[in-house]
Amino acid sequence: MLDLDSFFSKRAVEGFKPSAIREILKYGSDPSIISFGGGYPDPQYFPKEYFTEAMDYVLCSLTDKALQYGSTEGVKELREWLINFEEEEEKVKLELDEIIITIGSQQGFDLLCKVLLDPGDTVLVEEPSYIGALTAFYGFQVNPVSVPMDESGIILEELENICQNLGKKNIKPKFIYVIPNFQNPAGVTLSLERRVRLLEIASKYNMLVVEDNPYGDLIYEGDKILPIKSMDTEGKVIYLRTFSKILFPGLRLGWFMGNKALVRKVVIAKQSSDLCTTSLGQYATYEYCRRGYLKPHVEYMATRYARKRNTMIKAIEKYFPPEVKYTRPSGGYFVWLTLPEYLNADEMFWKAIEAKVAYVIGSAFHVEGRGKNTIRLSFSQVGETAITEGIKRLAKVITQEIDIFNKISAISL
Amino acid sequence: MLDLDSFFSKRAVEGFKPSAIREILKYGSDPSIISFGGGYPDPQYFPKEYFTEAMDYVLCSLTDKALQYGSTEGVKELREWLINFEEEEEKVKLELDEIIITIGSQQGFDLLCKVLLDPGDTVLVEEPSYIGALTAFYGFQVNPVSVPMDESGIILEELENICQNLGKKNIKPKFIYVIPNFQNPAGVTLSLERRVRLLEIASKYNMLVVEDNPYGDLIYEGDKILPIKSMDTEGKVIYLRTFSKILFPGLRLGWFMGNKALVRKVVIAKQSSDLCTTSLGQYATYEYCRRGYLKPHVEYMATRYARKRNTMIKAIEKYFPPEVKYTRPSGGYFVWLTLPEYLNADEMFWKAIEAKVAYVIGSAFHVEGRGKNTIRLSFSQVGETAITEGIKRLAKVITQEIDIFNKISAISL
Repeated sequence: MLDLDSFFSKRAVEGFKPSAIREILKYGSDPSIISFGGGYPDPQYFPKEYFTEAMDYVLCSLTDKALQYGSTEGVKELREWLINFEEEEEKVKLELDEIIITIGSQQGFDLLCKVLLDPGDTVLVEEPSYIGALTAFYGFQVNPVSVPMDESGIILEELENICQNLGKKNIKPKFIYVIPNFQNPAGVTLSLERRVRLLEIASKYNMLVVEDNPYGDLIYEGDKILPIKSMDTEGKVIYLRTFSKILFPGLRLGWFMGNKALVRKVVIAKQSSDLCTTSLGQYATYEYCRRGYLKPHVEYMATRYARKRNTMIKAIEKYFPPEVKYTRPSGGYFVWLTLPEYLNADEMFWKAIEAKVAYVIGSAFHVEGRGKNTIRLSFSQVGETAITEGIKRLAKVITQEIDIFNKISAISL
Repeated sequence: MLDLDSFFSKRAVEGFKPSAIREILKYGSDPSIISFGGGYPDPQYFPKEYFTEAMDYVLCSLTDKALQYGSTEGVKELREWLINFEEEEEKVKLELDEIIITIGSQQGFDLLCKVLLDPGDTVLVEEPSYIGALTAFYGFQVNPVSVPMDESGIILEELENICQNLGKKNIKPKFIYVIPNFQNPAGVTLSLERRVRLLEIASKYNMLVVEDNPYGDLIYEGDKILPIKSMDTEGKVIYLRTFSKILFPGLRLGWFMGNKALVRKVVIAKQSSDLCTTSLGQYATYEYCRRGYLKPHVEYMATRYARKRNTMIKAIEKYFPPEVKYTRPSGGYFVWLTLPEYLNADEMFWKAIEAKVAYVIGSAFHVEGRGKNTIRLSFSQVGETAITEGIKRLAKVITQEIDIFNKISAISL
């Protein structure tokens, strides 16, 4: 058999990292394990009837266009609908050549990297940050440098320090990547003040801002904070959104917004990546949206997910030992745990699996394997009773780990 | 406004080439112009009723899985069906970890490049070759070196000469890219003898073979020739197929086959490119195939496209001046014209547009802008009456160009 090793590209040898989440998801198929693993929507809330109605209409009335190749930019009707949606919902003003439909927002990262990044480039990311974006960055052989966060998002003093220190070494980050709403994985939200100031810092250091907003419409308390893109007067913010969490992920549709010159390059990159996005999926989604079904559906889902969040927070408050810190997300899918520093959540994972509960190790969301004492919990696809039971199981595992540590410490005194 | 030029990657500045076909397709929307441009299937033949039946079933019975994220490798049922299809139809034997579903075959090129190619690498291509593959290669900053073809496909003596000459310069091509059946754009088919010998040459020079087969099932005369992949005992052939021409392009589904080690890397590359392919599209396509609808549909389409081919060839025989050489494809979508060397089809394009007929300039399918006297004609989406009329119009333009040349030559004598 052929030995392929000499054929692989540098990027495949050095840059490719299989996703830690995907490994963990394997345990999701064991029904005795309660999994707080993947950030999957709850299929119970999929808008089966209304989407079928839209799909039926398209297959009946628009077959010639919907089953054919489409333009690389995406179906015009859908892009126009989204332009209107962005203006009404988020005060983001766009022209038609500033938006392109992508295969979820994940393809947005890939195209962005293609258009902007050379091997060895530096980008800034939140710590912790979304694993899918980090994986894309690694695949393009760039160096993500991470900026610490607190309960109001990225810490801007730290950001400035990092920019200054990089500047001294003549390193200019191409962009800073942020998830301002109900961040994945940390569950925190970037305050309005910090959004304004972040844009100023980006201008000062001549960086682009890549703003990712998959969860922004799933709000459980407080008001919507406008996206950084809505404050962008220079065209320096690239804004990524997806239907995966507000409708469903099974069509893989997202939208990518940026200034015209950038979007033009992204369109060329997409031409050679996949020619175009599914016409059928785009027309069906457009029909669903045009009929006014999206907004009530998102509102309905927000009330359901809010209950799940409340259940998880209540169980954490009741069962977790006081040594564990946790975030209280006002939207989205995730609660972020910080265990005492002497605990290792990577190793503890196997004990949790034995106790029939799964999570995602927090270190996967960190650059350079930091964050060994952190954990991401997703409450999105677990039923409320199971959430309570799963937290109880996890609490037991953590409590035992703390007890073992305390006993060992006592002996060594 | 921000000046983005300093932000773009080297690949975006040096490697990105917008598709010449896409520019030409603009004229496809003018109904007074008969366009032999894009290689689009005829929407008349889209299997509207049967596909709707499959989609309805999936939306009714499999909603939870079909609207959710899926595995990066693709829906298992569809991959298993395709494994069976490949064995029965093409004598290609595969295991489950040797096949992955992609966004058409175009994403196959992209993932292949990601996994195999570094900037400056060399790959071999047929001359002429598929523009979408060339664009992908350019985007990864590699050097395509082209190998001449005749009416039986790539000329193997030329291939060996090129390999030897490159070897003297210490250049080792990573792979040779071929479209053996009804080639796009040349319309010719690689003979069985040459397929066998090509594989031997690839082994001798330690290259991989990338075999692309979008049109192989649309046969109008002669027998099916087995793919090179079916003769591959070393796992050195990568085989790309797509539903775009045998079903329809609107879901963007293809399948990528290769040895396990390679497919494993391709899966990792796809994880960061788009996470996974549309579950809904895959389940609906699987249902359509499982119900036995694909084969009769392909047979039906082959009879229809064969008529279009016959009409085009007949019109060419009748109206074209004897100076024009043309291929007679035994399947697929394309006829390839070679004009006298003194004619420039790039410049003639505008005269053709004035005469209300469009084609794709052949130089777009050549490396380094060669082939200025060549033209690709696609008969797939034009009605039979329009085919005859379009060929008549084009014949007039070509005849006039030849006349002008002859007059100028006579004067300068």
